[in-house]
Amino acid sequence: MSEVVESYFEDYEVGSTRRTTGRTITEADIVIHAGQTGDFFPHHVDKEWCATQPFKRRMAHGTLVVSIAVGMTAGTINPRAMSYGYDRIRFVKPVFVDDTIVVEAEVVAKQDHPKSPDRLGRVDERVTVRNQHGEVVMSLVHLYVVEKRGAAVDPQASDAPGSSGSGLTR
Amino acid sequence: MSEVVESYFEDYEVGSTRRTTGRTITEADIVIHAGQTGDFFPHHVDKEWCATQPFKRRMAHGTLVVSIAVGMTAGTINPRAMSYGYDRIRFVKPVFVDDTIVVEAEVVAKQDHPKSPDRLGRVDERVTVRNQHGEVVMSLVHLYVVEKRGAAVDPQASDAPGSSGSGLTR
Amino acid sequence: MSEVVESYFEDYEVGSTRRTTGRTITEADIVIHAGQTGDFFPHHVDKEWCATQPFKRRMAHGTLVVSIAVGMTAGTINPRAMSYGYDRIRFVKPVFVDDTIVVEAEVVAKQDHPKSPDRLGRVDERVTVRNQHGEVVMSLVHLYVVEKRGAAVDPQASDAPGSSGSGLTR
Amino acid sequence: MSEVVESYFEDYEVGSTRRTTGRTITEADIVIHAGQTGDFFPHHVDKEWCATQPFKRRMAHGTLVVSIAVGMTAGTINPRAMSYGYDRIRFVKPVFVDDTIVVEAEVVAKQDHPKSPDRLGRVDERVTVRNQHGEVVMSLVHLYVVEKRGAAVDPQASDAPGSSGSGLTR
Amino acid sequence: MSEVVESYFEDYEVGSTRRTTGRTITEADIVIHAGQTGDFFPHHVDKEWCATQPFKRRMAHGTLVVSIAVGMTAGTINPRAMSYGYDRIRFVKPVFVDDTIVVEAEVVAKQDHPKSPDRLGRVDERVTVRNQHGEVVMSLVHLYVVEKRGAAVDPQASDAPGSSGSGLTR
Amino acid sequence: MSEVVESYFEDYEVGSTRRTTGRTITEADIVIHAGQTGDFFPHHVDKEWCATQPFKRRMAHGTLVVSIAVGMTAGTINPRAMSYGYDRIRFVKPVFVDDTIVVEAEVVAKQDHPKSPDRLGRVDERVTVRNQHGEVVMSLVHLYVVEKRGAAVDPQASDAPGSSGSGLTR
Repeated sequence: MSEVVESYFEDYEVGSTRRTTGRTITEADIVIHAGQTGDFFPHHVDKEWCATQPFKRRMAHGTLVVSIAVGMTAGTINPRAMSYGYDRIRFVKPVFVDDTIVVEAEVVAKQDHPKSPDRLGRVDERVTVRNQHGEVVMSLVHLYVVEKRGAAVDPQASDAPGSSGSGLTR
Repeated sequence: MSEVVESYFEDYEVGSTRRTTGRTITEADIVIHAGQTGDFFPHHVDKEWCATQPFKRRMAHGTLVVSIAVGMTAGTINPRAMSYGYDRIRFVKPVFVDDTIVVEAEVVAKQDHPKSPDRLGRVDERVTVRNQHGEVVMSLVHLYVVEKRGAAVDPQASDAPGSSGSGLTR
Repeated sequence: MSEVVESYFEDYEVGSTRRTTGRTITEADIVIHAGQTGDFFPHHVDKEWCATQPFKRRMAHGTLVVSIAVGMTAGTINPRAMSYGYDRIRFVKPVFVDDTIVVEAEVVAKQDHPKSPDRLGRVDERVTVRNQHGEVVMSLVHLYVVEKRGAAVDPQASDAPGSSGSGLTR
Repeated sequence: MSEVVESYFEDYEVGSTRRTTGRTITEADIVIHAGQTGDFFPHHVDKEWCATQPFKRRMAHGTLVVSIAVGMTAGTINPRAMSYGYDRIRFVKPVFVDDTIVVEAEVVAKQDHPKSPDRLGRVDERVTVRNQHGEVVMSLVHLYVVEKRGAAVDPQASDAPGSSGSGLTR
Repeated sequence: MSEVVESYFEDYEVGSTRRTTGRTITEADIVIHAGQTGDFFPHHVDKEWCATQPFKRRMAHGTLVVSIAVGMTAGTINPRAMSYGYDRIRFVKPVFVDDTIVVEAEVVAKQDHPKSPDRLGRVDERVTVRNQHGEVVMSLVHLYVVEKRGAAVDPQASDAPGSSGSGLTR
Repeated sequence: MSEVVESYFEDYEVGSTRRTTGRTITEADIVIHAGQTGDFFPHHVDKEWCATQPFKRRMAHGTLVVSIAVGMTAGTINPRAMSYGYDRIRFVKPVFVDDTIVVEAEVVAKQDHPKSPDRLGRVDERVTVRNQHGEVVMSLVHLYVVEKRGAAVDPQASDAPGSSGSGLTR
């Protein structure tokens, strides 16, 4: 279970990275994801058909790789940050049943929030997923709005994420 | 279970739309997604804490909304198309337990593939998710590479997705 | 976990009945069944649409009611019996989220097996499912082949179910 | 996600068939079905015991094969049809972990509905499940009541399935 | 589904044992348990890392072994008994993916309940889990409070478990 | 996903405590746990019967509360520690559907390991689970063997958990 660690916009440093332990993508993960999404395309659930294809084996859904990879980065809860989207999700190589993925996240950009530059900033974190061969299989940019230090004491700050206690990091 | 329907690049029309039936996002969906991703942040699993927050109720994970919405658009399998990513995923409003979402997908752009303009094209489909109040809760752009008609008879086409039979639509 | 209890054809009595404890069909059961079968028809997963229909509420899949009801009768393992099918499955009334079902099973017919009348018999068990209002919601006839007592000592019996230890009751 | 396609009784043709893509029955499917039904008989969950039996390997529950096969045929939602039961479900051969099934459905009979011959008809669809060796493993007959064309404009038709918008295909 | 069998304190005999059929602990079980508990430690979900460790393979969570083993002993519902805890849970050897466990339960102690010696007794059942090699992998002592025969007719008995109909065996 | 933090025996302090965020125990959790364990006792799955009992509502399985509570404490991976059991698990009050639990863990005892006092120590952590009313619902003592600082450089230490890199904390 995740810990709560408060980090303000000023605490994020461009270039800082974190790295998860590994997770094997199992047949069960794919079955459960097919069941959650309703996507039973043969690429994911038909072993016989896959064997006739160049890629040979059942592969994970793109949304499964995104979901697990983002979940793997959910290490600590930051009440001062709110996730508002993702950019440039790219599926570089397939993830097959039994592949093991590791995720690296790096802060790649920081800027003031255009609408509330005094109180809020934007932080971009690049998430890179590699398999057990060290190959990049997926990447995306995770977008956060983060409160600036001192914003909470600003009386105008009442609608900021976090100042109201609603801060989300996922 | 999905049907196989072959569609070539030429068959996609900018402006054409499709719309799904609805799906209620249940507490069980959130529990299963927390379990699939390992993200047990209190926004998703702690009813008591949520009640103390401005949003009041447990909300779906962003990756759950993406996964289900994309899955809802997986109506037919197109062996001539391959999904290679998503752009501009934005979480516009929270999706709460018991909200019902409907998804609309619209072809918003087509262009030749820069590396294989004779054989391949790119198709962008905007996916818009609305709740039972008609409010947009999430949007993204789904990116496809699609084979051009006749590409399969081109002997140089052997590495094209689809010509090799490996075409993915998810 | 089920116990093993050997019962031969002669041990089944037409008219004998057994009755299970109850089980509430939850929203989670329906979500899991949709995920197992890939059937996300709005009757099962779209609360808003259901509210516009005469039946008002999400209902369980027919195959969910069959699966749970048959599972509820799986009390003891009989190595002398093998299930080979079902007849006359009828969905009499819908089962809604939060309905609680109870199952009654009654031996309704016995006869010699046409191909091996000395060694095997057929037993028909009627399975009746009622909701918390006592209304029948589903019924079916479960078909078994059961070994006759003494068949195991017959040297010709080697291909009988049970004599080989392969007896199935489900 | 399934599309809505209206088909009236007159649109069904005896002899017309449809065929699904394949689905591999995984260990995870069996574990989930055991969990949904409560049937943990050793035929499904005890690998060591199965190895001592003539069939050697863990096999899918009968109700799992029925549920997945019927789900695989749930391609389009027909608001003019209602499923009311199944006949002659037969388990012809076991389905083992890792077998891949394909389903064929054929309209085998049509007749007027005895109680409302002007407005309703009955359609029987035979569902045949084959494994990767082409062997039939299960078959059943799926029973539908389908509205006749023009029934909706009949003022007496108000209790017909579909005319009220409650039409179920599952 | 479990049967209801009433057993009073006097019916339990020290030394009596019962033994379950087997259950294979699958990869899917571990994935589902990681998802239920939020424990994605690499010992359970990272095949590559495990291969570098002395134990070589992914192992079941301790709480998974406890949960499944106790569940396997839940054969019959005794309305006269209530489970109130466990003592001395010990993980003797790891349970790996694909191991098959069998559970033996033995009544090892009986004594009057210190607070209600006339009406209630305590029964200790030792639960021993073995793998397919016959090695003990886990053991615990399951603690029950059980009603004495005749307690129900005692007017002072109104707060006894069971007399009120609330008797739990799990 | 959990972080790796090395802690030696000397780093544990009797009296130090940690506390988790909350988690609501949902109907879905109980359905999934019934499915994982095979325990479908009516206390957990029969809403109608529960309504006739003094406790009124469906309650979580004891093993579910243990599994989730222990999982909630699995915050960081300590390669120097190994979990070997639990003592004195007590179910103090029922946990009902929709209750929210919070877990507190306190180091309550430390001692040298009797067999390897130079290299290993034992640490006992008391785990206390409270519901949204602040009532204790379950408690247990979690038992660890933890490496002493410097043990890894001892050539006799090769079989110590952790020195071999196999250290488990769950």
